[in-house]
Amino acid sequence: MIVNRLINCLIKRRHSTNKLRFYTNSYQKQTDIDQSVNLQATFPSRTHTCGDLRSSHVNQRVVLSGWAQRIRKLSPELIFLPIRDSYGTTQLVYRSPSLADYTNLILQEKLSQLSTESVICVEGVVIQRSQDTINKNMPTGEIEVEIDKLHCLNPANTLPFLPSDKKLSSEEVRSKHRYIDLRRDTLQNNLRKRSLASWIIRDFLVDEGFVEVETPILFKSTPEGAREFIVPTRTKGLFYALTQSPQQYKQLLMVGGIDKYFQIAKCFRDEDLRADRQPEFTQIDLEMSFVKVDDIISLIEKMLVQVWKKVLGIDLTNKVPFQRMTFNEAMRKFGSDKPDTRYGMEIRDISSFISDLSVLSEYYVECLVIKNGITLLSNSEIESLKLLDTSEDSKAKCEFHKIKADKLNSWFFDSHLLKHSSNLYDSFTKELNIEVGDFVIMNKRKKNLTKSWTLLGRIRSQFITLLQLKGILDISPLEHNFLWIESFPLFTHNDDTGQLVSTHHPFTAPLSEDIELIFKNPEKVKGQNYDLILNGVEIGGGSIRIHSPKLQYIIFNEILKLSNEEIKGFEHLINALGHGCPPHGGIAIGFDRLLTIMCETNSIKNVIAFPKTASGNDLTVFSPSEISKEKMKEYGIQLISDKN
Amino acid sequence: MIVNRLINCLIKRRHSTNKLRFYTNSYQKQTDIDQSVNLQATFPSRTHTCGDLRSSHVNQRVVLSGWAQRIRKLSPELIFLPIRDSYGTTQLVYRSPSLADYTNLILQEKLSQLSTESVICVEGVVIQRSQDTINKNMPTGEIEVEIDKLHCLNPANTLPFLPSDKKLSSEEVRSKHRYIDLRRDTLQNNLRKRSLASWIIRDFLVDEGFVEVETPILFKSTPEGAREFIVPTRTKGLFYALTQSPQQYKQLLMVGGIDKYFQIAKCFRDEDLRADRQPEFTQIDLEMSFVKVDDIISLIEKMLVQVWKKVLGIDLTNKVPFQRMTFNEAMRKFGSDKPDTRYGMEIRDISSFISDLSVLSEYYVECLVIKNGITLLSNSEIESLKLLDTSEDSKAKCEFHKIKADKLNSWFFDSHLLKHSSNLYDSFTKELNIEVGDFVIMNKRKKNLTKSWTLLGRIRSQFITLLQLKGILDISPLEHNFLWIESFPLFTHNDDTGQLVSTHHPFTAPLSEDIELIFKNPEKVKGQNYDLILNGVEIGGGSIRIHSPKLQYIIFNEILKLSNEEIKGFEHLINALGHGCPPHGGIAIGFDRLLTIMCETNSIKNVIAFPKTASGNDLTVFSPSEISKEKMKEYGIQLISDKN
Repeated sequence: MIVNRLINCLIKRRHSTNKLRFYTNSYQKQTDIDQSVNLQATFPSRTHTCGDLRSSHVNQRVVLSGWAQRIRKLSPELIFLPIRDSYGTTQLVYRSPSLADYTNLILQEKLSQLSTESVICVEGVVIQRSQDTINKNMPTGEIEVEIDKLHCLNPANTLPFLPSDKKLSSEEVRSKHRYIDLRRDTLQNNLRKRSLASWIIRDFLVDEGFVEVETPILFKSTPEGAREFIVPTRTKGLFYALTQSPQQYKQLLMVGGIDKYFQIAKCFRDEDLRADRQPEFTQIDLEMSFVKVDDIISLIEKMLVQVWKKVLGIDLTNKVPFQRMTFNEAMRKFGSDKPDTRYGMEIRDISSFISDLSVLSEYYVECLVIKNGITLLSNSEIESLKLLDTSEDSKAKCEFHKIKADKLNSWFFDSHLLKHSSNLYDSFTKELNIEVGDFVIMNKRKKNLTKSWTLLGRIRSQFITLLQLKGILDISPLEHNFLWIESFPLFTHNDDTGQLVSTHHPFTAPLSEDIELIFKNPEKVKGQNYDLILNGVEIGGGSIRIHSPKLQYIIFNEILKLSNEEIKGFEHLINALGHGCPPHGGIAIGFDRLLTIMCETNSIKNVIAFPKTASGNDLTVFSPSEISKEKMKEYGIQLISDKN
Repeated sequence: MIVNRLINCLIKRRHSTNKLRFYTNSYQKQTDIDQSVNLQATFPSRTHTCGDLRSSHVNQRVVLSGWAQRIRKLSPELIFLPIRDSYGTTQLVYRSPSLADYTNLILQEKLSQLSTESVICVEGVVIQRSQDTINKNMPTGEIEVEIDKLHCLNPANTLPFLPSDKKLSSEEVRSKHRYIDLRRDTLQNNLRKRSLASWIIRDFLVDEGFVEVETPILFKSTPEGAREFIVPTRTKGLFYALTQSPQQYKQLLMVGGIDKYFQIAKCFRDEDLRADRQPEFTQIDLEMSFVKVDDIISLIEKMLVQVWKKVLGIDLTNKVPFQRMTFNEAMRKFGSDKPDTRYGMEIRDISSFISDLSVLSEYYVECLVIKNGITLLSNSEIESLKLLDTSEDSKAKCEFHKIKADKLNSWFFDSHLLKHSSNLYDSFTKELNIEVGDFVIMNKRKKNLTKSWTLLGRIRSQFITLLQLKGILDISPLEHNFLWIESFPLFTHNDDTGQLVSTHHPFTAPLSEDIELIFKNPEKVKGQNYDLILNGVEIGGGSIRIHSPKLQYIIFNEILKLSNEEIKGFEHLINALGHGCPPHGGIAIGFDRLLTIMCETNSIKNVIAFPKTASGNDLTVFSPSEISKEKMKEYGIQLISDKN
């Protein structure tokens, strides 16, 4: 009878848990709550984690805490229950003793009541598994823990999905219950890898004499750069802006004599989100005084060697120094300022084969040969590549040639771009190694480039993507091709206004040899800047900055032709340069993107604990949200349609 | 003649620098700029820092970079110039060679043109100083560098103040030119100490198995807590709020199985600023699963021992475990929940001497004896202490007694509070050690306290401050008294509405023994919470959190009587607790405040690179600032007085 009472009590508790679920979902007034139910569990401290136990612990009495996994009840007298925590999983076993007593019946009942993912604490003895039941796939697979006590610390409601599910639920469901999704091995590993990577980076930089300095996140609105979040203050009309990068502050730190600064910094951009963008993101940000481009590049290479070695166990030393390429070279060879060099297929200069020599004064004529292109790609895929040519001007349109056996050289003589002679046909096909089955694309393009892609570059990239999608090309995610792209143009003409604008930010120092061009031909001036590319992804960029207030002022005033009002927004910086600013330079590396590649995943959301959706929502906590008019009023603002 | 031309050129350059200053200040159109002036210095890389060189380097040729200090020109042929960088100062010397050539004349001229704090790079040879000129106060005092080349990398305008000035300029001038102020030794040291401290803390926590996880700064507006910054989004009417602390996210991480989380996190509060407050501040934030109060307390003690040892070189081991006191005990003994225990002077319970016993049911009667008070303090200072008693009710007013030789016991019999018998007079004065010259204050106060101070606590604290100001009491800044205050009341009645509100935040778990009181007498429920006090400053606080969704719901619904709408704001948290939340707890330590004490300074502004003024302004970059109506419109807002 006592047993019955106990079991009834347990059943009642289960009901009452269900009832609560109803309450918390509907927020009805709760009147009949059973106050006798234990609201706060007491429990012994764990002696080990669920990843700790080995044969050497056999016969020890242990306490484990964690999440109950799916129970396997062979009989009421023999129940298996894996328990999982952040460190591993351990097999628990309940074996009914020959003389069943009440305590055991309660334990038995408790076990059968347990819902998966309930939080429990168990006490028991480590026992050796028999040879045939050892699980070699589990670090704890040599033992199991025979339990005699179970504390249910927090029963779990039925979960919308289980961390152990092989097939993932929809992203929305998982985002809403991120706290369940985070229990998955992949995300646990990614977050741990992230923590370790930031630790290794700090270790390295501190060792190199860097000082970590926190710069303000509440910054001010600046005319340059991406769209920024604004933050109203209680002084009506005055706003902070969330910092897009610590750029200005780190330059001020150089003026302040910090010599070597770093920060793993939160930055904010209110741009439309893509797979690799988040409204808030993390940068490894650093700046050094009295340095040249090579100093920064070799420091970063040394740092990445450490990170790859200590986080991934991969030795990069034979890749150091990383390949370096100027912007112009990258655009010529790969048609991109962030080429994926894991795949060759370089674009070739074919100027010497051009029929109309006048073209060459203005244009650069180039050719891409897709080896076996017409075998590897379907006709519709080839058409999709052709569609990338969006130029309106039919004369500027590029030429596509399928090299077929039946018209082996007719294509050459059909070409508008090429000089038609049999001599040249031979040297052309030989030099470019053109064979039957290839797909050949030729294009002429303006010589001076400031954009990130040329047409042939886009076709090359799209082709590589197609091959990967088709499973023909298998680039190992473990292949890590680092590449520095240097000497970008400093200024470009705005498409709409025709005015000169900065390509990166206006603080970048020009190449010393180009400094005279500033006054004569500013669009030809290259900068002392460098981007770090990893497998075709831009993971960082930096430059040597301008330290002369005079040069900085000339660029604002004479080159970019900023208004006095706009220049005033940079007054503090120009003044700072004039008060003893050392030559300096630095770099910022996108920590989220770096991690995404290190974790071999396809989205930065998988390396961030609580990412926001493409529309900027945090589905876990339901942000952003509405706020009251009173709160807005405190900040001197109202919604636009409001009439006071 | 060539020399003349060179000198003229240098003078011209100087003029042109002055002209620039005019331009950058007034932003006039610059038409006559001398383009031949070197806009971007080229210079050799430094071989050493300005703190490196010793006798062992004598005869080596070196390159140094840094800031020119005040020049000392003994003759045109003998010039001394100290050069400073982030690592130290080195004495440079120019000695004209016997055969002066043009190069030397230029160098000589360059030196005389140098303004203090100009950035230079010099080349020369390390030479031993003669025995009588060795400077033992400088680590580089054994040597000087005889220079033969000087590159002026960036001439400095006349500075509003010098980093070496003994007398500090006004805070406003220094804030506006923070980049100069940062060159001062004190601030350089503070920022380096801060960097080191955060490094040691991370080192310790990573070693203890913690995972650093970055949680979002763009959070949502919550009903509880301090005033928060709001951030409009481009979806009209929806706002983020800047996170006040990672509290909710770190609890979700516990539900997500992160087990041991930490973060050195930026937090934001839009409260009126005081000396120890900034709108953005940094917290050492951590949370652990399956732990009890003692686990967290001993972890933090171990951490602080490391920090004190490795940053300050101070051994705290004999202070561990830190003193612990309940909230009630602290209020009884010190009248404060953050007592400064570097000074004794405890408040005493004098209930047994009370005349009117009925008082004792409601009140607690206490006495503070200021030894030698009437000798140490002037009459006006004593009056200032009396003014702290602001109670309107004359009956509740406390009693002040000066113990003078001429009315040695009359004060006792004048007291309204005390029972008048000669017997009691003797035991009272003996027990409280009251002597001639003392100043005695007696007060009765309500028994149940939730406020931070009692009247006697305020008087005690004010008295200690007075003694320090008068130079009578000299508390060493190196004396570090740590103290845990525990078991605060969970709920208090709102002064205005009388409604129960949370004293800390509503997620704190009650003491197990108090759990029954929740329904009967919630204002008597104490929490499993703890504050860490250092020298009377609250530097951190935390608690074991509620893990039961049922208990959390009861507290929101039945105790705090939140509306359904308000509870809905916590729905995600209650749901998370119901999906397998382990028991957990944590702490947050104010990193800025901790550093302020470690750096022996009186304001957190001295441990922050770019602090904001009391009115929330950053005078260096002029933030906050106005933004355009167009920008506001993008975010669906307008200023309140605007009519569309």
